[in-house]
Amino acid sequence: MSSDFDVMWKAYSSWRDYAANSLKAASNTSFPIGYSRAKRVVVCGMGGSGGVGDYLASLVAVYGGVPVHTVKSHRLPAWVGKDDLVVLVSFSGETLETLYCLREALARRALVYVVAGGGRLLKEAEEANVPATQIVRGPAARASFAQLFYATLEPLARFGLVRVPKEHIVESIDVLGQVDGIVKLAREALTATGNAKLYTFISCSPFESLAIRAKNEACENAKVSAMAWFLPESFHNDIEGSLEDVEASIIAFIHDNTCSRMVKTLSEVVGAPVYPIELNGRSPLAKLMWGTLFVGFFTLLLADKRGVSPLETARIKAFRSRYAQLFS
Amino acid sequence: MSSDFDVMWKAYSSWRDYAANSLKAASNTSFPIGYSRAKRVVVCGMGGSGGVGDYLASLVAVYGGVPVHTVKSHRLPAWVGKDDLVVLVSFSGETLETLYCLREALARRALVYVVAGGGRLLKEAEEANVPATQIVRGPAARASFAQLFYATLEPLARFGLVRVPKEHIVESIDVLGQVDGIVKLAREALTATGNAKLYTFISCSPFESLAIRAKNEACENAKVSAMAWFLPESFHNDIEGSLEDVEASIIAFIHDNTCSRMVKTLSEVVGAPVYPIELNGRSPLAKLMWGTLFVGFFTLLLADKRGVSPLETARIKAFRSRYAQLFS
Repeated sequence: MSSDFDVMWKAYSSWRDYAANSLKAASNTSFPIGYSRAKRVVVCGMGGSGGVGDYLASLVAVYGGVPVHTVKSHRLPAWVGKDDLVVLVSFSGETLETLYCLREALARRALVYVVAGGGRLLKEAEEANVPATQIVRGPAARASFAQLFYATLEPLARFGLVRVPKEHIVESIDVLGQVDGIVKLAREALTATGNAKLYTFISCSPFESLAIRAKNEACENAKVSAMAWFLPESFHNDIEGSLEDVEASIIAFIHDNTCSRMVKTLSEVVGAPVYPIELNGRSPLAKLMWGTLFVGFFTLLLADKRGVSPLETARIKAFRSRYAQLFS
Repeated sequence: MSSDFDVMWKAYSSWRDYAANSLKAASNTSFPIGYSRAKRVVVCGMGGSGGVGDYLASLVAVYGGVPVHTVKSHRLPAWVGKDDLVVLVSFSGETLETLYCLREALARRALVYVVAGGGRLLKEAEEANVPATQIVRGPAARASFAQLFYATLEPLARFGLVRVPKEHIVESIDVLGQVDGIVKLAREALTATGNAKLYTFISCSPFESLAIRAKNEACENAKVSAMAWFLPESFHNDIEGSLEDVEASIIAFIHDNTCSRMVKTLSEVVGAPVYPIELNGRSPLAKLMWGTLFVGFFTLLLADKRGVSPLETARIKAFRSRYAQLFS
């Protein structure tokens, strides 16, 4: 195994500690009065950073709170204004889309919170005197999801905007320590599915965030084509697509009994084998984070099997070299 | 060409008339006082019906209004309550997920509006004395999108919840009459891309709705595997997936200059040929509907080329036979 692989493996293996430290760092970030009155949360971020918004949307669907919108774009929706808490999340702090969203959020006098590993985003947050938490950067944004997620969740939970109980947050960090058990299951899943040319990751509403995350990890770490399906929605369209033509494997994440029934039904009507993964954990949040770490190790192992570096992302690099002109 | 094909072709060809009639029907639906005070719109629906919510979310991002959430599930998010206008959309009026959402919306004392072709949904709306518009049913939900969409949009625009100007609505219905021009372009796109085993449809934020719609139409009408990508987000993950392994074609919908630059950049860094489609129309809404009709004809032609019926959906039928037990 290459040193790229080792670097990434170590990062995912350290999520429990990163998560705990990030939660603590955010709890020390002071906020002006008024943040708990936000009527909506808008999370701006791209890739792994934007995924934080997807996760929070899953959480408020389950636990309650205010609605969470994710913006994976350089523009805020027209309706965003002073009643909104706009959270800007960027691993590098140099993501152009997120920087533009910060400036637009400030211009619209929205409440603002920044989570970043450094860069211009933190600098501009400081200049604008808005609360910010700096996270510890791992080797890549996707491998730093634990830091980004808990630094974002902490104040939202504190202000009651995402009503997840503290003990569920604690449990969700604990499950990130189950590295050996998760790796064992990831190896089994790889043996069962690892020759596919296309991966379809499935989760059940309102856990859409997990299948999206898995799809992105498969692309970035393992360089394999991947897509995300959500149940029950995919019963109404995706299942008609001829997956048997493209040598696809399906991995389905199960978080409750209804989801389990839906995945079983799916396996009876779809055109490719379905490999089910029962998410481990007592609380919904713990299950979500367990699944996220599973996906990390699974896609690292898949990268190794496919003989690609899980760290290098040549096409994203090529995109970045053309980046500055895009949004001008 | 089969009679299934003819039936579907005729339905899409009639969208302009269906849209105009549906808009008129909805304008005759009377609403109690208070609907214009809704703070959010939550659209519940599955498949083509749920797509209506995706479209409205695109519109409020561009035009302003209140935030629109789409729920493609049998459960409402925990945060939905009396400040929300919950719109239930179902072609058949028998969609179980949507029925459950109606009951939950009523129990939470949300504002409610129903758009359906008949069935239990209309019946329960009548019993609960909530406003409803009955749409004319075409041969399938997806081929009745014009009816579903305009019946939903009309009151939301009337109440200022989706701030699309009346003249844009009128223009968007007009472009649905451009059948010959759209079919010509769809045939050209088919010639350029029609041997793919996987289709990737791309649109730019905030027009995510169009790529999702195209993906679903490809699955349902043409029975081909398909996925949806959104720019700029896909630059940060999807492009690393090895599309060259699965004989993929990419079709990208362009709605403005930034989108055009992004699609050009994508074609330089991704692993499959990109076929660009410039959306026709002056207003954002007209472009969106033009693209939607393009997708309809393109996927009908693709079904014909692949030798499959665009009307029959055997797997969805198999799912429906197992449906009633799923959500109990």
